[in-house]
Amino acid sequence: MLNVGVIGTGMIGQDHIRRMTTVLSGVAVTAVSDVDSAIAADVGGRIGAAVHASGEDVVADPAVDAVLVCSWGPTHEQYVLAAIAAGKPVFCEKPLATTQEACLRIVEAETATGGRLVQVGYMRRFDFAYRQLKQALDAGDIGAPLMMHCAHRNASVPSFYQKEMAITDTAVHEIDMVRWMFGEEIAAARVLVPKKSRNGNDLQDPLLLILEMADGVIVDVELSVNIRYGYDIRGEIVGENGTAALGSLSPLEVRSSGRLSTPVPADWRERFLAAYDIEIQEWVHALAGGGRPLGPSAWDGYAAAVVSDAAVEALRTGERVAVTLPEKPKLYEVLG
Amino acid sequence: MLNVGVIGTGMIGQDHIRRMTTVLSGVAVTAVSDVDSAIAADVGGRIGAAVHASGEDVVADPAVDAVLVCSWGPTHEQYVLAAIAAGKPVFCEKPLATTQEACLRIVEAETATGGRLVQVGYMRRFDFAYRQLKQALDAGDIGAPLMMHCAHRNASVPSFYQKEMAITDTAVHEIDMVRWMFGEEIAAARVLVPKKSRNGNDLQDPLLLILEMADGVIVDVELSVNIRYGYDIRGEIVGENGTAALGSLSPLEVRSSGRLSTPVPADWRERFLAAYDIEIQEWVHALAGGGRPLGPSAWDGYAAAVVSDAAVEALRTGERVAVTLPEKPKLYEVLG
Amino acid sequence: MLNVGVIGTGMIGQDHIRRMTTVLSGVAVTAVSDVDSAIAADVGGRIGAAVHASGEDVVADPAVDAVLVCSWGPTHEQYVLAAIAAGKPVFCEKPLATTQEACLRIVEAETATGGRLVQVGYMRRFDFAYRQLKQALDAGDIGAPLMMHCAHRNASVPSFYQKEMAITDTAVHEIDMVRWMFGEEIAAARVLVPKKSRNGNDLQDPLLLILEMADGVIVDVELSVNIRYGYDIRGEIVGENGTAALGSLSPLEVRSSGRLSTPVPADWRERFLAAYDIEIQEWVHALAGGGRPLGPSAWDGYAAAVVSDAAVEALRTGERVAVTLPEKPKLYEVLG
Amino acid sequence: MLNVGVIGTGMIGQDHIRRMTTVLSGVAVTAVSDVDSAIAADVGGRIGAAVHASGEDVVADPAVDAVLVCSWGPTHEQYVLAAIAAGKPVFCEKPLATTQEACLRIVEAETATGGRLVQVGYMRRFDFAYRQLKQALDAGDIGAPLMMHCAHRNASVPSFYQKEMAITDTAVHEIDMVRWMFGEEIAAARVLVPKKSRNGNDLQDPLLLILEMADGVIVDVELSVNIRYGYDIRGEIVGENGTAALGSLSPLEVRSSGRLSTPVPADWRERFLAAYDIEIQEWVHALAGGGRPLGPSAWDGYAAAVVSDAAVEALRTGERVAVTLPEKPKLYEVLG
Repeated sequence: MLNVGVIGTGMIGQDHIRRMTTVLSGVAVTAVSDVDSAIAADVGGRIGAAVHASGEDVVADPAVDAVLVCSWGPTHEQYVLAAIAAGKPVFCEKPLATTQEACLRIVEAETATGGRLVQVGYMRRFDFAYRQLKQALDAGDIGAPLMMHCAHRNASVPSFYQKEMAITDTAVHEIDMVRWMFGEEIAAARVLVPKKSRNGNDLQDPLLLILEMADGVIVDVELSVNIRYGYDIRGEIVGENGTAALGSLSPLEVRSSGRLSTPVPADWRERFLAAYDIEIQEWVHALAGGGRPLGPSAWDGYAAAVVSDAAVEALRTGERVAVTLPEKPKLYEVLG
Repeated sequence: MLNVGVIGTGMIGQDHIRRMTTVLSGVAVTAVSDVDSAIAADVGGRIGAAVHASGEDVVADPAVDAVLVCSWGPTHEQYVLAAIAAGKPVFCEKPLATTQEACLRIVEAETATGGRLVQVGYMRRFDFAYRQLKQALDAGDIGAPLMMHCAHRNASVPSFYQKEMAITDTAVHEIDMVRWMFGEEIAAARVLVPKKSRNGNDLQDPLLLILEMADGVIVDVELSVNIRYGYDIRGEIVGENGTAALGSLSPLEVRSSGRLSTPVPADWRERFLAAYDIEIQEWVHALAGGGRPLGPSAWDGYAAAVVSDAAVEALRTGERVAVTLPEKPKLYEVLG
Repeated sequence: MLNVGVIGTGMIGQDHIRRMTTVLSGVAVTAVSDVDSAIAADVGGRIGAAVHASGEDVVADPAVDAVLVCSWGPTHEQYVLAAIAAGKPVFCEKPLATTQEACLRIVEAETATGGRLVQVGYMRRFDFAYRQLKQALDAGDIGAPLMMHCAHRNASVPSFYQKEMAITDTAVHEIDMVRWMFGEEIAAARVLVPKKSRNGNDLQDPLLLILEMADGVIVDVELSVNIRYGYDIRGEIVGENGTAALGSLSPLEVRSSGRLSTPVPADWRERFLAAYDIEIQEWVHALAGGGRPLGPSAWDGYAAAVVSDAAVEALRTGERVAVTLPEKPKLYEVLG
Repeated sequence: MLNVGVIGTGMIGQDHIRRMTTVLSGVAVTAVSDVDSAIAADVGGRIGAAVHASGEDVVADPAVDAVLVCSWGPTHEQYVLAAIAAGKPVFCEKPLATTQEACLRIVEAETATGGRLVQVGYMRRFDFAYRQLKQALDAGDIGAPLMMHCAHRNASVPSFYQKEMAITDTAVHEIDMVRWMFGEEIAAARVLVPKKSRNGNDLQDPLLLILEMADGVIVDVELSVNIRYGYDIRGEIVGENGTAALGSLSPLEVRSSGRLSTPVPADWRERFLAAYDIEIQEWVHALAGGGRPLGPSAWDGYAAAVVSDAAVEALRTGERVAVTLPEKPKLYEVLG
């Protein structure tokens, strides 16, 4: 049984706690904390976990084997660094930190320990369909990859959603996914700005993000965050001899009123719920008996931040912006 | 240019005339007749065709190379026999005749001439999708056929539609299709009667027709004639190693309001319009320069009548009814 | 934490033990037994469970809250009755018992206790796609159901598979599923025998099973157990105004070599793995804190046995065989 | 009967002659010419058409009502101008002329006559699926269009195919299609260059063409001309509230060897054959009785040339290239 301490018991933290206490195997939540101590007390009380005054106390709790960070983004760095300092595995919800500099500090701290401790919450790598896609690609079914077409569509976004968030909150999933899919870093970003949807009032929506991988593969990502009809994640890899794409995944076909219809997910929960479960279950299994995490690393969190910054600048300037990363530490050379 | 005389200028006759005068190549309509002489005069006048007092006069007209019979079913026999007597090719809309005895008389009259003159209007054999299906079957892609699942669905039928018509008017298309698809006669029929739809008032709808081919292949045909959502023709052949089915054929995919939808045809015109065009065009091309028809033969029309009678009896009695056909004349041994 | 004792540690038992120890939440396996005591010792040893000499000892173990029966079919009755006698909830893999008389004895024993204790392992009710299908049906999207078309296809079956097993082992899943889907008992069965596949040597395969529900809905089930291409479960409900069907569920679309392909599952594990997980997880959750099972009941196991016997007789005789059930005890009136 | 003179009896000319003599209604080929007089004599002889020494003679032939130009591209201008001078309708295969200046001369010559005489062979506008797509867009099913994703894939191209031809020969179909689809001119072009496929040897393939419509709609077009698996034309319009896309159009679904497959067309003939038939048939019907052509106009041919030139420059420079068109003459204001 892996004993996990959860820092941050807001919406996402509570969802992970629900997952670890009622869905997954081999894991217990033994300690919690939150900036709002009343919430922490309430959530912790319901599951019989220790309630601590700070995230650092959660890390320090001897009844905590591993830490899960779901607090407000700007606090991620301090808690992840605390866990590294304590030599405890830490799962950090995305983003790893809110600046690329902070991400780099985490990379350096982890590298200094000589082994992986950090995993970042990019859950697409755990989605059944993306894994099938990668498997088809790696099996050579379509030859070497040359391009990828993606779409990331949300039915709607809240009113506080700003246009940069289409990069930092929305496209960041594709940014991580393509790095993992192709095993290549992203070399440049560019953002094209189409006619504006009236669904988002002042928001510039949609956008067309274009990423160049280090080996020349080009990825285009349609970002539409107020498209009303549902949540739709699409991806098609164009290879030398064919293409491989995410399928329809539809469990139901209804023929009525002049058409054949299949349902589209309403939101990301419906589409990626299973991926979240698998993500945390695999993390728990990997850590069982003192193992190391195998999922997205601190380097992946850092690289996502650097690419995201470049894409935001590309959106601001209208120009192609090159991405420059330092040499990848040996620790991260193994794919994970 | 093939000069065609059309007997019967009602809805179907006018549609064939439109086809031969504005869609197809190498054909002209030179004479018409109808039981309602005013309609014949009107239709003939518009296209500059001779208007005759009787179908026999159309057959006899020296400016008529071939005859197309679209008159009321009970008159088919006399006009087809007249064409055979005159040695002129005749295309007869289904049914070939309204009794199996009448069909047999036509078979005998044609057989006596020593060559094929008659083609019957079973147009599914000319449908692109059914042809692809047969091609996949014949290529051995799925191994030997063992079963076939069919559905024949109409959005609605007129109030004069009686339950036997589900066999004689609706299922008769599948009856001909499976004989052609498998190159086998039908050996027995059975009809199961499910719970009744309230859409058809007193009509027993749907039905489940089960046909046994001579070699043991079993075909089930769902007949639903008031299913509201559209016109839908389905067919899946189950072979030893796989299955082959009619595809979705959808030219359009719309994502809106929470679903991915493809349109379903409203009626048979939309689904089979091209098949009607090809049916008549191939007939015209086959007859060009004195050739013989290659499409569904008088024997096919006769066999359909015999099976149809058996299925109607099966519907009446609830029992399995065997189908008995005389030996097929040599004239019809060549598939066509 | 629900402590479960597992009777029978063969292939299925081991799979359930793996599920309860490494996949599911809130459950531990505390005791095991098997007719082969060496296997029991091995399996129990690996997970630290008590190893008992008999299933009755597992039931009697005070460290066992609930029992899971995965032993050889003919022994199900005695272990289920033992659990009922001990007042412990028992999950029994299908079949509930190997004769309808034995099933009825279980029903009577459970009924005498005044509350549900037994759940039977019909896992299709827990499949995401079937649940969506039932939801669409219950929502009235297609009007009242009139027919259902099913196919149950296996790539291959072992050489000991006999033709009756197409009913008792294969179709039994559809038998349970349609009772649940329509909330109606099955009133009659009939089996049609098509041309035989050469893939199964002497085995009569495929079969066409036809079930009549008490309210007249007709269900046809194609049973093909050596169809080579993969494992394929199909289902389409025909309603008054439309149809609802299991979707394609495909996570991947590959375009290569002249075609667009989606993968078909290789076997039932791939197709229904998640349903097994959900089945046991929901059972565990339902029992937590002393609750009652909500899944397929002893009555469902009994009804499946009665229908299965009727279908086997229908296969033997070629006739329609009516199904007669006694009045359903009040205990089972609530759906579950 | 429309009497057509065909200038150029090479592969495409012969195909159109076959179409007009054996497929379409209301048209006859009465005169031909070719730079290779032997071919002209052979083709003309077979169909009983007059064989002329020059295209100008075809135009001048009083037995010619309308002219169809299928000669070598650089000769298009002179024959189209000759037809305009003679006041005869002329259908010109694409390109209208090989330079935008030549196209403009044709526009000016036609405009001077005060009525439309010229139609250019952009046949996608006649494709059933594109028409359904436009109908869904115009019906407002998805709200205002914001983006369009296209792919134009060929299994292979001949060795003489140069990278500019990906624009001038391949993408030109999309260039015309989006102008028609959105009823807007193209304002700018840009070409991104992904990793190169090894299937095309030295050829830079694929390319990603990006077009900006005058109202801000952005269109991306993947151009892959050696993708081996088949000919595949894709298009999805992203609207404010949903998307509309070309459907799968598949007539056949085969389940075998572990997958569900639908066939992909081998080449453009298979995909667009019907569109060619409809294109010429509608032209024939429009001209019947002295009518004007309604299909793609000389202005469309000119605009395609201007955009094509801009895209070629964009490919050469790597930059965004703006497209500037003079004011559209009133003659072309009506959509057609």
